[in-house]
Amino acid sequence: MMHLHRDTRILIVGLGLLGGSYALALKKKGFRCIYGFARRQETVDYALEQGMIDEGSAQIDEDLISRAEMIVFALYPTVLVKWIREHGHLIRPGTVVTDVTGVKACIIDPVVRGLPEGVEFVAVHPMAGKEVGGIENADETIFNGANYIVVPTPENTEDALRLCEDLGAELGFARISRLSPEEHDEMIAFLSQLTHCVAVSLMCASEDERLVQYTGDSFRDLTRIARINDEMWSELFLLNKDALLKQMDAFTAQMEKMRGYLSSDDREGLRDMMRLSTARRGKFDKK
Amino acid sequence: MMHLHRDTRILIVGLGLLGGSYALALKKKGFRCIYGFARRQETVDYALEQGMIDEGSAQIDEDLISRAEMIVFALYPTVLVKWIREHGHLIRPGTVVTDVTGVKACIIDPVVRGLPEGVEFVAVHPMAGKEVGGIENADETIFNGANYIVVPTPENTEDALRLCEDLGAELGFARISRLSPEEHDEMIAFLSQLTHCVAVSLMCASEDERLVQYTGDSFRDLTRIARINDEMWSELFLLNKDALLKQMDAFTAQMEKMRGYLSSDDREGLRDMMRLSTARRGKFDKK
Repeated sequence: MMHLHRDTRILIVGLGLLGGSYALALKKKGFRCIYGFARRQETVDYALEQGMIDEGSAQIDEDLISRAEMIVFALYPTVLVKWIREHGHLIRPGTVVTDVTGVKACIIDPVVRGLPEGVEFVAVHPMAGKEVGGIENADETIFNGANYIVVPTPENTEDALRLCEDLGAELGFARISRLSPEEHDEMIAFLSQLTHCVAVSLMCASEDERLVQYTGDSFRDLTRIARINDEMWSELFLLNKDALLKQMDAFTAQMEKMRGYLSSDDREGLRDMMRLSTARRGKFDKK
Repeated sequence: MMHLHRDTRILIVGLGLLGGSYALALKKKGFRCIYGFARRQETVDYALEQGMIDEGSAQIDEDLISRAEMIVFALYPTVLVKWIREHGHLIRPGTVVTDVTGVKACIIDPVVRGLPEGVEFVAVHPMAGKEVGGIENADETIFNGANYIVVPTPENTEDALRLCEDLGAELGFARISRLSPEEHDEMIAFLSQLTHCVAVSLMCASEDERLVQYTGDSFRDLTRIARINDEMWSELFLLNKDALLKQMDAFTAQMEKMRGYLSSDDREGLRDMMRLSTARRGKFDKK
């Protein structure tokens, strides 16, 4: 049984915002064997210069892969699946593989199928990020106060799940929990993907150039995430299409309900919705 | 012609969050003749104790009204119209009357009709607030960085408009501008009322009790304003019904467009919307 300690050898594949922040957090915690793969040599050089990794490569370095006891994939979902299909056989038995992907049901199966016997995959969704990507924006404080969701399947061992939970704790996440792939995807469709749909739609809904002069905090808050990585988010939306469509419809039904109250001057109907939202939102402030 | 100076006698009618914050800001700027009316005696007492006003009353004090050179109404729109109808005749000629109301087209006329000859009304919308109301939450810093919109009619004199603009500058607003009542109401329907509709609808769209455990920053940001003063906002929505319905429809059309791209796996369509929203939102960050 593997325990996480400062000499556990961890390979991070993908040194973007999240992968870079993982590396940074682990090095700051005193981990001594952090390896990194990136597509571009300058990313690897930057990570080495900044002391974010101990060794790195812009190629598939079989030696680093075989030394790693734990591999964290910090790649876009489709890139992750492709990587595993092409190079998964290089991972040695006994390695625990984990990820940071924001959708789960659709990627667990392809990843597990691409891994050799004896390599265990634990799906994890660290709910942290920024509007800006890239290793130069890596920042380990994004994990403070954030949620880290472990998404077990019946095949997972308790040991590997614990190892990944310990990783979340080392990274500084505030709350570590478990959800099934389906529960996770439904939750994320509502909390994360729907909010991005709403923000983008709001930003697209008016082309009045003067808005910026008159905007207040509420519009700013609701559209902060409308600055969006279109490559990543379009992929996430499509990979979680059914769950997201369901949540979009649930939201639109509420907008329609409110529109109905407004157009029929039903003040009590409007106030009922506002009271419900106020009561519910209150609970989100307590933590 | 009246100029704003530290001995200008200003009566604030309504000592809630906004009225209280006006009082606080003016006293901190050294104004010496700030009067306040509130419905409840304890509010007046609190304002006096805290040095937010120099004199105050929980009744209609005709002496204070007649001494005032400027009256700021910090009341809900329907309460404002009712106050003017009942007590407007007490205001002496030469007084400049202003307000803080979030809707304009529908209140300017009733207010102007209720005022005696020689009393000028300048409609103003200070775009500042908090999720919590009441004088005990008054805070003059809410004006920093905020917009102050003066809404002139053809009847307004340049002197009175300037006086109210000077008041905005004294209060600490970052940007003071002018819009016609119709432009104002359209802008506000989009930037402020639609955002509140969206936040409330989002909060009403799921009754899953576990959401709070898994929520990230994006959901928190989009629903901050879902804690809403239902009395005030239902009134504002209904008073600006046509403009708001139009903006709700524009937003829903964008949500439908996105839903269509998603359900037909049109990734480029999704990315186009995301790129547009990213480009637009970028401009909102520059200030």
